[in-house]
Amino acid sequence: MTKIKRLVLDVLKPLDPTTIELADKLISLKNISAVNIVLIEMDRKVENVKLVIEGTGIDYKRVERTLTNTGCAIHSIDEVAVGKKLDIQHYVKKD
Amino acid sequence: MTKIKRLVLDVLKPLDPTTIELADKLISLKNISAVNIVLIEMDRKVENVKLVIEGTGIDYKRVERTLTNTGCAIHSIDEVAVGKKLDIQHYVKKD
Amino acid sequence: MTKIKRLVLDVLKPLDPTTIELADKLISLKNISAVNIVLIEMDRKVENVKLVIEGTGIDYKRVERTLTNTGCAIHSIDEVAVGKKLDIQHYVKKD
Amino acid sequence: MTKIKRLVLDVLKPLDPTTIELADKLISLKNISAVNIVLIEMDRKVENVKLVIEGTGIDYKRVERTLTNTGCAIHSIDEVAVGKKLDIQHYVKKD
Amino acid sequence: MTKIKRLVLDVLKPLDPTTIELADKLISLKNISAVNIVLIEMDRKVENVKLVIEGTGIDYKRVERTLTNTGCAIHSIDEVAVGKKLDIQHYVKKD
Amino acid sequence: MTKIKRLVLDVLKPLDPTTIELADKLISLKNISAVNIVLIEMDRKVENVKLVIEGTGIDYKRVERTLTNTGCAIHSIDEVAVGKKLDIQHYVKKD
Amino acid sequence: MTKIKRLVLDVLKPLDPTTIELADKLISLKNISAVNIVLIEMDRKVENVKLVIEGTGIDYKRVERTLTNTGCAIHSIDEVAVGKKLDIQHYVKKD
Repeated sequence: MTKIKRLVLDVLKPLDPTTIELADKLISLKNISAVNIVLIEMDRKVENVKLVIEGTGIDYKRVERTLTNTGCAIHSIDEVAVGKKLDIQHYVKKD
Repeated sequence: MTKIKRLVLDVLKPLDPTTIELADKLISLKNISAVNIVLIEMDRKVENVKLVIEGTGIDYKRVERTLTNTGCAIHSIDEVAVGKKLDIQHYVKKD
Repeated sequence: MTKIKRLVLDVLKPLDPTTIELADKLISLKNISAVNIVLIEMDRKVENVKLVIEGTGIDYKRVERTLTNTGCAIHSIDEVAVGKKLDIQHYVKKD
Repeated sequence: MTKIKRLVLDVLKPLDPTTIELADKLISLKNISAVNIVLIEMDRKVENVKLVIEGTGIDYKRVERTLTNTGCAIHSIDEVAVGKKLDIQHYVKKD
Repeated sequence: MTKIKRLVLDVLKPLDPTTIELADKLISLKNISAVNIVLIEMDRKVENVKLVIEGTGIDYKRVERTLTNTGCAIHSIDEVAVGKKLDIQHYVKKD
Repeated sequence: MTKIKRLVLDVLKPLDPTTIELADKLISLKNISAVNIVLIEMDRKVENVKLVIEGTGIDYKRVERTLTNTGCAIHSIDEVAVGKKLDIQHYVKKD
Repeated sequence: MTKIKRLVLDVLKPLDPTTIELADKLISLKNISAVNIVLIEMDRKVENVKLVIEGTGIDYKRVERTLTNTGCAIHSIDEVAVGKKLDIQHYVKKD
């Protein structure tokens, strides 16, 4: 099984749970050492956030399940790093 | 309970307290090692500021209460970092 | 035979396999130490991604075969580094 | 009392004193280790400057008094750092 | 004879050889330690690439001959460094 | 007397002396360790330059006199640093 | 005599000599450790280049003579550094 070192997800989340509660749930998953969330857009009912997760071997299925269970929808997988994490910042598009 | 390392809040504050007084109140909370405030927009009656808080385990509820007690309104949670703080600067949108 | 240290490919991929599964397949190839994938554009049926691969001697033919076998089309070779990897970021065009 | 480490003020100053004389007055205040002034706009009678002050514990009241006594008007407090000084450059708006 | 440390060439190449094959040919020349190629524009029949070559003493004539022999046309010499390589990135124009 | 560490002046100079001769005159003043001049605009008769001067204690009066004696006009004092020199680059406006 | 550490010249050169031959001539002058040339614009008959020269004490007269003797015209002196070389990149204008 591949070892995901970094994952950036574009996520649509309801206002509840808050980004803090969501980060809380994700950091408790195995092999995840960092969960950083950036707000991209805020609506009356949903928030569009970038979820940046790093770890020694992120289990995507569990991340996905955690998000689905809290009412979040993964809009897209924006970045994936397996093996060494590279500096690919200049390829990342601004929303 | 999750350990918030970094929190960026978009806040609408009245002119009183000043940003200096507000920073003063927040830095006195437990486990907070840095409070940096950047002015985004200034109106006759309110100021829109970015509140950047770092620490070993920021207690969001207390931050929220402190802001509410001084007449500030949290417009949005712009950034949250739990676990390791990552460089996510290129995802942050300019207002 | 030349030793490719870095390869950036512009790839059109079907939604299945996911970028995670694709990264998984590529990292298992010989002499590849990093596979980073960035989503550029998403359509109903295909995704346009940048595939950034680094290693001590990337075998392009195998990378190509892996991509073809999974239904991906290499749109263009955007970057190649043989010998030392240089900082050529300022020459890279934004899509 | 809070320990201000960094203060950025947007200031309207008359042409006299010069920015050099103003810097001179401010650096002589207690606990201030740096006064950097950047000219933003120049008019026939006034100059709009950014006043960047760093120190171990800047006394805002004294800074304010010094500015007022020399005919300067503080237009806004653009940045305040208490506790650790963070890199918040990407939140700073260009005038 | 001068010691060229870095050479950036704007090159029009046919689709065959591929950039990988071209890099392969160039890295085999004497005193060249790095060949990095960036795709700038792709047409049906030709590709416009930036060829970034570094080494201890690049022999321009041989580089030129290699390019000509493979059907490439040097459109312009965009950068030359003799003696120490300097950071001149901010002078480089974007195409 | 204040210790100016860095001074940026916007200067209108005649074509004679050249920027090289002007730099020559300024570097010979006491306590100045660096004089860097950047051309901003060139006219038939005058040049608009940024004069960046660093030292342990720049004597502004002497700098001013040197400039006046060579027919230069100080258009504005764009930057002043007393005490520690800070990174204020993001506040500097482009002409 | 002043010690020029860095010199950036805006030069109009004929197509012959090539930038490589020009760099070759300049690097052979005394006290010059680096000659980097960047192409800015290319015409049918002339090329506009930035000539970036660094050394322990660049003799401008010799540089000028070398350029004139090869049919080049110095359009302007864009940067001069005497004493310490500073980071003045943010003052440099893009052509």
